[in-house]
Amino acid sequence: MRLLLINPNTTEALTDRLAAAAAQVLPADVTLLPTTAEAGFPYISSRAEAQIAGADVLATIARHRDDIDAVAIAAFGDPGLLAARELFDLPVTGMTEAAMVSALMLGQKFAFVTFAARLAPWYGEQVRQAELGARHAGVFTPDLPLGAIDRIDSDMREPLIAECRRAVAAGADVLILSGAPLAGMAATLTDDIPAVLVDPVQAAVLQAASLVRLAPRGAAAGSFARPPAKQSTGLPADLARVIADADPPAGSRR
Amino acid sequence: MRLLLINPNTTEALTDRLAAAAAQVLPADVTLLPTTAEAGFPYISSRAEAQIAGADVLATIARHRDDIDAVAIAAFGDPGLLAARELFDLPVTGMTEAAMVSALMLGQKFAFVTFAARLAPWYGEQVRQAELGARHAGVFTPDLPLGAIDRIDSDMREPLIAECRRAVAAGADVLILSGAPLAGMAATLTDDIPAVLVDPVQAAVLQAASLVRLAPRGAAAGSFARPPAKQSTGLPADLARVIADADPPAGSRR
Amino acid sequence: MRLLLINPNTTEALTDRLAAAAAQVLPADVTLLPTTAEAGFPYISSRAEAQIAGADVLATIARHRDDIDAVAIAAFGDPGLLAARELFDLPVTGMTEAAMVSALMLGQKFAFVTFAARLAPWYGEQVRQAELGARHAGVFTPDLPLGAIDRIDSDMREPLIAECRRAVAAGADVLILSGAPLAGMAATLTDDIPAVLVDPVQAAVLQAASLVRLAPRGAAAGSFARPPAKQSTGLPADLARVIADADPPAGSRR
Amino acid sequence: MRLLLINPNTTEALTDRLAAAAAQVLPADVTLLPTTAEAGFPYISSRAEAQIAGADVLATIARHRDDIDAVAIAAFGDPGLLAARELFDLPVTGMTEAAMVSALMLGQKFAFVTFAARLAPWYGEQVRQAELGARHAGVFTPDLPLGAIDRIDSDMREPLIAECRRAVAAGADVLILSGAPLAGMAATLTDDIPAVLVDPVQAAVLQAASLVRLAPRGAAAGSFARPPAKQSTGLPADLARVIADADPPAGSRR
Amino acid sequence: MRLLLINPNTTEALTDRLAAAAAQVLPADVTLLPTTAEAGFPYISSRAEAQIAGADVLATIARHRDDIDAVAIAAFGDPGLLAARELFDLPVTGMTEAAMVSALMLGQKFAFVTFAARLAPWYGEQVRQAELGARHAGVFTPDLPLGAIDRIDSDMREPLIAECRRAVAAGADVLILSGAPLAGMAATLTDDIPAVLVDPVQAAVLQAASLVRLAPRGAAAGSFARPPAKQSTGLPADLARVIADADPPAGSRR
Amino acid sequence: MRLLLINPNTTEALTDRLAAAAAQVLPADVTLLPTTAEAGFPYISSRAEAQIAGADVLATIARHRDDIDAVAIAAFGDPGLLAARELFDLPVTGMTEAAMVSALMLGQKFAFVTFAARLAPWYGEQVRQAELGARHAGVFTPDLPLGAIDRIDSDMREPLIAECRRAVAAGADVLILSGAPLAGMAATLTDDIPAVLVDPVQAAVLQAASLVRLAPRGAAAGSFARPPAKQSTGLPADLARVIADADPPAGSRR
Repeated sequence: MRLLLINPNTTEALTDRLAAAAAQVLPADVTLLPTTAEAGFPYISSRAEAQIAGADVLATIARHRDDIDAVAIAAFGDPGLLAARELFDLPVTGMTEAAMVSALMLGQKFAFVTFAARLAPWYGEQVRQAELGARHAGVFTPDLPLGAIDRIDSDMREPLIAECRRAVAAGADVLILSGAPLAGMAATLTDDIPAVLVDPVQAAVLQAASLVRLAPRGAAAGSFARPPAKQSTGLPADLARVIADADPPAGSRR
Repeated sequence: MRLLLINPNTTEALTDRLAAAAAQVLPADVTLLPTTAEAGFPYISSRAEAQIAGADVLATIARHRDDIDAVAIAAFGDPGLLAARELFDLPVTGMTEAAMVSALMLGQKFAFVTFAARLAPWYGEQVRQAELGARHAGVFTPDLPLGAIDRIDSDMREPLIAECRRAVAAGADVLILSGAPLAGMAATLTDDIPAVLVDPVQAAVLQAASLVRLAPRGAAAGSFARPPAKQSTGLPADLARVIADADPPAGSRR
Repeated sequence: MRLLLINPNTTEALTDRLAAAAAQVLPADVTLLPTTAEAGFPYISSRAEAQIAGADVLATIARHRDDIDAVAIAAFGDPGLLAARELFDLPVTGMTEAAMVSALMLGQKFAFVTFAARLAPWYGEQVRQAELGARHAGVFTPDLPLGAIDRIDSDMREPLIAECRRAVAAGADVLILSGAPLAGMAATLTDDIPAVLVDPVQAAVLQAASLVRLAPRGAAAGSFARPPAKQSTGLPADLARVIADADPPAGSRR
Repeated sequence: MRLLLINPNTTEALTDRLAAAAAQVLPADVTLLPTTAEAGFPYISSRAEAQIAGADVLATIARHRDDIDAVAIAAFGDPGLLAARELFDLPVTGMTEAAMVSALMLGQKFAFVTFAARLAPWYGEQVRQAELGARHAGVFTPDLPLGAIDRIDSDMREPLIAECRRAVAAGADVLILSGAPLAGMAATLTDDIPAVLVDPVQAAVLQAASLVRLAPRGAAAGSFARPPAKQSTGLPADLARVIADADPPAGSRR
Repeated sequence: MRLLLINPNTTEALTDRLAAAAAQVLPADVTLLPTTAEAGFPYISSRAEAQIAGADVLATIARHRDDIDAVAIAAFGDPGLLAARELFDLPVTGMTEAAMVSALMLGQKFAFVTFAARLAPWYGEQVRQAELGARHAGVFTPDLPLGAIDRIDSDMREPLIAECRRAVAAGADVLILSGAPLAGMAATLTDDIPAVLVDPVQAAVLQAASLVRLAPRGAAAGSFARPPAKQSTGLPADLARVIADADPPAGSRR
Repeated sequence: MRLLLINPNTTEALTDRLAAAAAQVLPADVTLLPTTAEAGFPYISSRAEAQIAGADVLATIARHRDDIDAVAIAAFGDPGLLAARELFDLPVTGMTEAAMVSALMLGQKFAFVTFAARLAPWYGEQVRQAELGARHAGVFTPDLPLGAIDRIDSDMREPLIAECRRAVAAGADVLILSGAPLAGMAATLTDDIPAVLVDPVQAAVLQAASLVRLAPRGAAAGSFARPPAKQSTGLPADLARVIADADPPAGSRR
């Protein structure tokens, strides 16, 4: 099984970090294909950036669709997730949704713990979009200046532990370490925190692999049925071709 | 007051239709600046298309931001609405949200009535995102092939009336004629339907004009506070400049 | 356009204050007709008082209905709003509902900030009745004795700023200054508070004016269809006449 | 125990009917004091009428408060219920709320079955106000002209049975016969309907009697704490006295 | 009327305590039959224990069903409640549900106040199962080691008062003293707490008695219709007989 | 990885059927250990039966806990799921929950399609307990007498297809074939139904396997933290030992 792991940020070091965390949990028969965005932002941290990056995610999938069995979008906020699910006949997962969905089986209330306060309202909207608010205990974030993303392991360890404990006190029993820069940290924090920690990129690749096994027809029908073929102006060529293609090749249909 | 009316579709006839409907209700002191998308799709009808068009909406606002007081995004599904609200210090409204919000003051349950069945799940998600599901009576749509968009007035009149009546029977007392191609039809259907009809583009421009009068600081703070300045790769120049601009000109700040 | 601004309290100074705040935002073509209640209470602050005042609101509209295009009920808690919407074929708005509805387009979570703790549960019920709880961040109120209503500007300024900041910390990005005695204060507080402030009486008159432009048939149908004519005992004459009138004059029908 | 049964309608025959139904279930130690409204409407069937009648309910309780232990408001829609609960230190129940609350222990979904279509939206609002929508299967009502209220037993029997069955098919397992004119009919319909029937006036008096036994302090604190004493203009004397009374007689305090 | 009061714990002193609290409020015509579990746990405090105890509750009712008119299950968490309601044609109430349902008529928000932190998530699930979350202000519990259950009156009095006050500050106006060991304490705490206190076992027996008067057919139909007769292996004899019995004796049918 | 697949029914043929369906999707490194209940019912179809069977599920896990890495409970309704999650430090999944959670990533609304009308209310409660009602399109079931469970493939094929289509028409885009006797049918029905079909036992084993990879500490903390050690009376020996064991062997701790 070939799984496309899309990092919608332009920072390659993040891709490496995400792929390393994913590799720890991947079943033996799954091959990971990590990609890094060529256009966009070093690190997506707003709705506006996600709007733009999400369009690029669609183009990335369009470029690879004949070589892959499933897609995991590896940025918190899941840019382009619902659009991709609609446009491609492949299982597509996102870090946020996959982490929430996994959390539902590990406890009664999940919380997001992240590293920058201004992410909170936008991250909270992902819960709303999934209609999982009744199981959500909130977004917890240190009230600190955002350090360099590549020093998060060292700089943010103590503040993150403090926030995790605050989340537990607020009733959360599953904590989702929210944001690609935190990939892989769950294993190193878990001894200090009285709750289950979920690593979202691990959840995203595991759920994608399970969906391939479970649902060979992907999301081909219903709400996410493929839109009718349509001409467009000014789109990347691969993406324009997918959108214009009334009868996609059997290989990409599941 | 200068109000940018963005048609995110590439069809100019739709822009004319939207502007005409808007003009019927516009207060005397409001000037409308209608625009048509240069890239994208003749008519947006899927999440994937909205993902792409929404990015273009941001670029359009970036191009005009020094000349305008508010923005109305005139495609059902409100592509780019939350992102625009975050990125620009101007009141920004969308057809769907503005129509729902107006409906709350005209009845107890609103319904969407539209012209193509496959729009229903996506339109329904707008209600979910706004957390207005408890006031929503559903999406009603004829089970007919989609005719040419420019013949909707004649072809779809009877099917739309039938759907409006079905919506009323299901408990709706405000009906939102959903989709830009239906702009202006409320006035011609109203005599045949025992409910209040709302024309979404009219709602969008009226709410935008009211927000300008009401809230001189726009959405400059809180959840929609402007993201920090950020470098980007591969964006349209005006938009990249807005995103990279830590200290936007006073003129665009309200 | 003629807009009846009903102060359901018996305090004339409040009427002046409300009318002054409304005048700041009124479009040029709207004429305001402010009224003060002749019976009832100096300042409504309980459900029981609102039950009684709401009946009087209906009588007030009945007295004026042939001279007006819309009504704004200017007491927080919206006494008589749904009943008036049902009984009269005119757009009718209330301070609370109009402020909430406007807030939906300015942020993700709104809060009420008010001046007396015992208003909180009753004000909270307005959110429930409108089914907007998912967008509500709470009611914030100083824990201070209620001073004279006419000294609120000076006495309450600092406590209100403190509560506004508490509301922001709790996730609100739009703050509704709740209660007629706070009318006009938004402009004077806004520089000290990192959130959007909404003045409810301004929202009420703006939304009423927009509804007149948008929905020429008012709420004549559906859930708020006019009740059948009915005889009554012991009501004010104008109101009894409206209720007994199976076929209201065309002038009052929109 | 003395229980005031308020019929807020002016029709004495209804009072007799309500009292007869209540008497069938009353514990031996409870004495019923039925009253009929002197002002208002023969039969309340709209929000506007309930707004007015609710104010009269308050005056009625004020007249009797020294002689009673609890109050049951016997009109569907519960006019004045929350206001009365706030103003008087007595248990106060309403037909609608008491029937819903009882239904929660008899099944998973309750429905209202009533006799006139235009009552449906207003009755539905009672569910919303109580936040019980997740347990509500809808309002079911014949599509027939409303006959004389005093011939409902004979005229409406078959249509009501048909609606009850429709409600069951829609998932309801408890049916509330909604509206004072249906008082007492549950017993005569029950053999024909595969669901539990609840008679709301019976529920209202039983719950009121239980609350007297359960909660000797009534609703004296919290959200329904008594409002501070206040002067008023133009109110019935007994009611004005209650509202002006900072220190109500011990006899009325429980 | 004969009312079976089931203590699903094996501690007889708790049965005495529960029966004493119930006796204080019982109408004169109701006879209480208290029972103590013979198998299971001294005090149920987890979902696992409730799963097991709930099965025993069914066997207990099966043993007594020909001698009783109604059942009250007297352990917080209501073990076996929905299963019993389905299997037996008798009104069955539970402490938690009955207390919540009574609270709905005494205030706007209820809270649980209990004596051990680890009960909180499980108790919170009862609110969720009843879909009453919108009226729930939370579970409040001291952060203390759990003392001996039989010394709760003396050891826990001050901590419970503190938690009650915290619950009031969080918006609760009705407080449910949650857990059988707290039975009877409401009367002794009430003077120190500015809110309505509900004693759950009192609520359970009062609601059961009212349901007997109200709904002579019990929950015989709809969601709780009796399951078809079925053979089983390894069940207590009385229970196996009830489950295998396609045509239960008329005496147990109401 | 060793996965205990518990059939809580006493019918061995069902166990074979469930194991065969699970085997189709199982990753190569997962070994399935299927068990059949020795006490209880041939086929669980009510809350009362699930209450009893759930207690037996706990005893079954207690017997096997030292030999397994995870548990999948293979009866719709998930008897004993939350209790097992609390009592054992292993990932535990249930057919219903796992199917719902998987459905969230495959569409916007899921429906249950099952074979007997009386299962509908109980199955619907599973959605409520998981707080997933906003994503649920209903329970769809033929209005036919229940045939022999072992002839469902042939007898029920056409009625099930009809119900699946009804569910799609009602807005569902993911259909969960609900009930152990339907295990394995998704593959044979999928060509006739325009929606994604989910086989719940397959979802349960895939999610259990993923949780083992994802969350090495299982549900050891938070809401599902292990209850304190407790003595009991009359329980199966293995289960009593687990419950009495304050310090479970390291082997069962993950």
